[in-house]
Parts: sequence; C-alpha cells; structure tokens
Amino acid sequence: VQALASVIDAIVPHLRPGTLVADVASVKVRPIALMQERLPTSVDIVGLHPLFGPQSGRDGIRGLPIVVCPVRPADTAAVIDFLANRLELTVSVQSAEEHDRAMAHVQALTHFVAAALAKMSLPETPIVTPSYAHLRKFVDMVRFDSPLLYEAIQCENPYAGEVRASFVQHVQALAKALDVRQTSDEFAPVPTSGPQPA
Amino acid sequence: VQALASVIDAIVPHLRPGTLVADVASVKVRPIALMQERLPTSVDIVGLHPLFGPQSGRDGIRGLPIVVCPVRPADTAAVIDFLANRLELTVSVQSAEEHDRAMAHVQALTHFVAAALAKMSLPETPIVTPSYAHLRKFVDMVRFDSPLLYEAIQCENPYAGEVRASFVQHVQALAKALDVRQTSDEFAPVPTSGPQPA
Repeated sequence: VQALASVIDAIVPHLRPGTLVADVASVKVRPIALMQERLPTSVDIVGLHPLFGPQSGRDGIRGLPIVVCPVRPADTAAVIDFLANRLELTVSVQSAEEHDRAMAHVQALTHFVAAALAKMSLPETPIVTPSYAHLRKFVDMVRFDSPLLYEAIQCENPYAGEVRASFVQHVQALAKALDVRQTSDEFAPVPTSGPQPA
Repeated sequence: VQALASVIDAIVPHLRPGTLVADVASVKVRPIALMQERLPTSVDIVGLHPLFGPQSGRDGIRGLPIVVCPVRPADTAAVIDFLANRLELTVSVQSAEEHDRAMAHVQALTHFVAAALAKMSLPETPIVTPSYAHLRKFVDMVRFDSPLLYEAIQCENPYAGEVRASFVQHVQALAKALDVRQTSDEFAPVPTSGPQPA
C-alpha cells in the first residue's frame, strides 16, 4: 500500500486505453482514491482484496474470500466471473467504504489487540482455559505478519483510528473501575508471608 | 470469593477436629490466607480450583483440569487420589502464588480483553478472517460469565492488577505510535467525496 502512488506513476506510461488496472491492497478507500486520481480515464479500475496470503493459501485458494470494489465498472462483471468461476473464490462485492469500515474491526482491531498481547510474553502454563487457548491462537496467527502489513491495516484505513481509540477508551475505563474496586478491598489483603497460626 | 470470610465464620462452630475444608474459588492466595487465618488449627485445609463450570462440564467432567493447592497437608494425598482416580480429573498441584500468577494471564487478562471487546459491538460481516473468528469466539466464551466471577478474577487475584496495567500501557503506546504515523501520512489523505476525474 505504502508504495502504491509511485507504482501507479511508474506504470502510467505503459497503459493502453481499455487496460484493466486492479490493486490487491488490504485497504480500499485510499488505494482506489489514488488510482482514480492518478490513472488516465481511458483505463478501467477495480479494487480487489484477497483475504488470504502465502500462508493461508498454500494448500490452494479454492473457496477463500475475496472482496471486489467496482470503480470504473466496464469490466467488473468479467472480473467477478473470473474470480468466482475460474479461481473458485468466494466473491463479495462491496464499496470501498463498506470494506474499510468492516476491516477496521475485522483486521485493524484484531491485529491491534494481538500486537498489544504479543508484547506481554504470555506464559505457557500447564492449566489453560479454552478462552485463553483462543487468545493465544489468535495472537500466534498475526504475530508473524510483516510490519508493513500491520502499518497498512492500521494507518491506511481511514476508519481504523476511531475503532482503536474506542478500544483504548474501554480498556482504560475498565482498568480504572477495577483498580478502584481493588484498593477499597478491605477483607482480603495480600498476605504477608508470616507464620501460619500455630 | 466475595462471601468467603462470612461463610468461614458461619461454619467454624460446626467443624470437628480433623475435618477437611476445601474452597473452590477461582483465585487461591487470598481465599487460602482467609482460611488459614479464620479456621481452627484442628481442621485440615486444601485449596481447589476446578477450571470448569456448569457450561463446560455439562457433558461430564472426566479429564477436565483442576488445581490443588496443599495447605495443611494431612489429607492432600487422599484428595488428589479422589480427584484423579474417582472423578478422573486432570490434577495439577501448585502453590497458591504459582496458581494466581498464572491465572493473572490465563483468566484475568483474557477476561479483561474480552470485556473491553464486548463493549464494542463487533460487527457481523460477510468477510471474516480466521483471526477475527478466534477473537469473536473468545469474546463469546466469556461474555456470559457473571459479574461476580469477573470481579473475583480481576480484584481478588493479587497479580491481576499489574498484568492489566501492563496491557493498558502497551495498548496506549501502540495507539500513540500509530496515531503519529497516521497524521504524518502525506500521500494518502481520506478522499473527500468530490467528483471523479472526468
């Protein structure tokens, strides 16, 4: 995503009228705005977001999800037909805004929470609850994503900032409410390691 | 947990010498300290934490995990034998401190993150990544826990506060780093809904 503007400028001289230009960025509003701004009106544009990568697609991509954002719609039907029938992907057609709004939760919030948890060196313990197992699993799924993907998901999605801010606020408010409760706790002080009653 | 002190005081008159008293609270340091403080020295004490409840144990409890914290050890071997061989539970023997330190992550952090996410009304969307599916699943697993259990896990575990504080700090630092990056973003402004280039 971060290189898209310069890539567009580099390819412009080579585009013939009627060429279809598609991006495959993880966010859609800004890349599509860039393409609309910088590509000649003689080319067609479609925004794509394949929700898989080398890892999740390594055993084949059949049935995996892809989002299509029609921009200059000349070839959109042919694109969808190719994706759905030749590649056998599961196609969702959305506007760039719908896509980025959904992805502010699906991707940005998820990766943000995982990034914070990944900093905490979650202990291996012999006793694990099912919910802790889920938490560790979802941290492990995103911790090896590249920093550039993380930055694109967070910073190139115009709705991600407000979702992150909302999460930060909830976390702070919940922590505050619990800390107040904890200090007013009168009946169960942390025991000093004194002797047991004899 | 919150009623343990008054329960102990209520049962004291009925305890005969050699009686075994066990609690089944989700935290162990404070309940065990309370029992040591308030129970007569003539009774035996063991701390238990069955990591399951009416939901997770409704199809049988065989193989499910339980933590045993020996306190006054007279009957601990018999307790472990009963739990492991009669109830067929998976028994871990830990000190109260070991237990609560592990649970500050396994339970307190997990439920805290889930509580914050539960406040955000995560959208249903047609496109869902595997990591988002895990995130939703782990929120759903804890969102119906009782407020009293949530409070016990958070406020009666002496190590939970510092783990929460660490998470809050990481969240704030990551959000700040991303917000700086977002505002210095020069090449991809949020598009105004102006007309496409003609």
